[in-house]
Amino acid sequence: MKRTLVCCHPYDKSLNTAIKSAIIDVHKKNDVKLKVFDLYESQFNPVMSQKELQEFSRARTKEGINIENLDPMAVEMAQEINESDELILLFPIWWELMPAQMKGFIDKVIFPGLFYSNVSEFKMKSVSDKLKKVTVITTMNTPNILYRIMYGSSINFALKYGTFRKLGVKTYRWMNLSSVKFKSQNKLQKYLNQIEKAFQATHHRDLALTPTAS
Amino acid sequence: MKRTLVCCHPYDKSLNTAIKSAIIDVHKKNDVKLKVFDLYESQFNPVMSQKELQEFSRARTKEGINIENLDPMAVEMAQEINESDELILLFPIWWELMPAQMKGFIDKVIFPGLFYSNVSEFKMKSVSDKLKKVTVITTMNTPNILYRIMYGSSINFALKYGTFRKLGVKTYRWMNLSSVKFKSQNKLQKYLNQIEKAFQATHHRDLALTPTAS
Repeated sequence: MKRTLVCCHPYDKSLNTAIKSAIIDVHKKNDVKLKVFDLYESQFNPVMSQKELQEFSRARTKEGINIENLDPMAVEMAQEINESDELILLFPIWWELMPAQMKGFIDKVIFPGLFYSNVSEFKMKSVSDKLKKVTVITTMNTPNILYRIMYGSSINFALKYGTFRKLGVKTYRWMNLSSVKFKSQNKLQKYLNQIEKAFQATHHRDLALTPTAS
Repeated sequence: MKRTLVCCHPYDKSLNTAIKSAIIDVHKKNDVKLKVFDLYESQFNPVMSQKELQEFSRARTKEGINIENLDPMAVEMAQEINESDELILLFPIWWELMPAQMKGFIDKVIFPGLFYSNVSEFKMKSVSDKLKKVTVITTMNTPNILYRIMYGSSINFALKYGTFRKLGVKTYRWMNLSSVKFKSQNKLQKYLNQIEKAFQATHHRDLALTPTAS
């Protein structure tokens, strides 16, 4: 059992950092493998270059992609995730979507030949047979009901249906900590405990997640 | 009358670049002011730094923001847009959303104290009284109907309701060139003509846009 956590927040005293620490702690405590990529700490460049885009087009040709033209950090992340049972994405919601760096992670890591192959025009398949589950943890100041009705749960549509379901990932979970600015310290601590609990089990079936939207 | 165009595509032979050229041409021909920011050409860094995030928090304090802690390119873009009647965003849809660099534009330019001020907890107001209109032009390989039903028109919800409506921008238009990969050269040329036509008029009321979704 191995999980990979990809997180992305510029402030080391943020709720996102507290969640990251909670996830690391519970994995240490339970002796479960966890690979962590902090996009800010590693100064991941989210911009897809022309060279990388050319490789994207080449992926469908007979030659396939030339990995040397890709960002080595993106290649490393894809390899680690391909060896994982679960991918955890953790980020704040800014303007109802992920920060630029997390979008760049999607653009550059969820890449043909690296992360998936094209079965047909609209069908894709993950390179890995191991990766069965994606958990997305978000924090937002927007109230949950407003995010769902007014903003169409944009992040859920884009990541669940627009990305991971396309790739054949079976289990997709979304844990959304909404109205964060208006929550007491006590309430936030309860959230952290809930997140720890969600990753306590080493088997998928034992996870007791309470996502706000599926 | 002045417009600002912000665009974002790594490949100089892309449809996006052809659209950019068409927009520039029609403005030249009609002698209408157009300021262009090409995020790739200017190597815009989309990552919000810790320093910038601190300024975000300071925006609500009495002192307000310290512009020197922000990205000079973001400051310049905000100033140009504030002096414009219309903002045009042009980008490809990757994984059902904008590329990382365009998300970084939203995060760093649509910034408190620079682009808007907070009227109350949930109410914001553009700094500029001039900016009345935002036109978003996107290209995607996904068929339009699929994008709307399966992927919840994520980009529309995030940009229209989640960003510009919040800021009080009255007119928001979305021109979406879908199924691009399956379109003939002839059809694409028709799209280009349509876009030129949409920007031919110098007055808002004269614009003859045919957005696929409002």
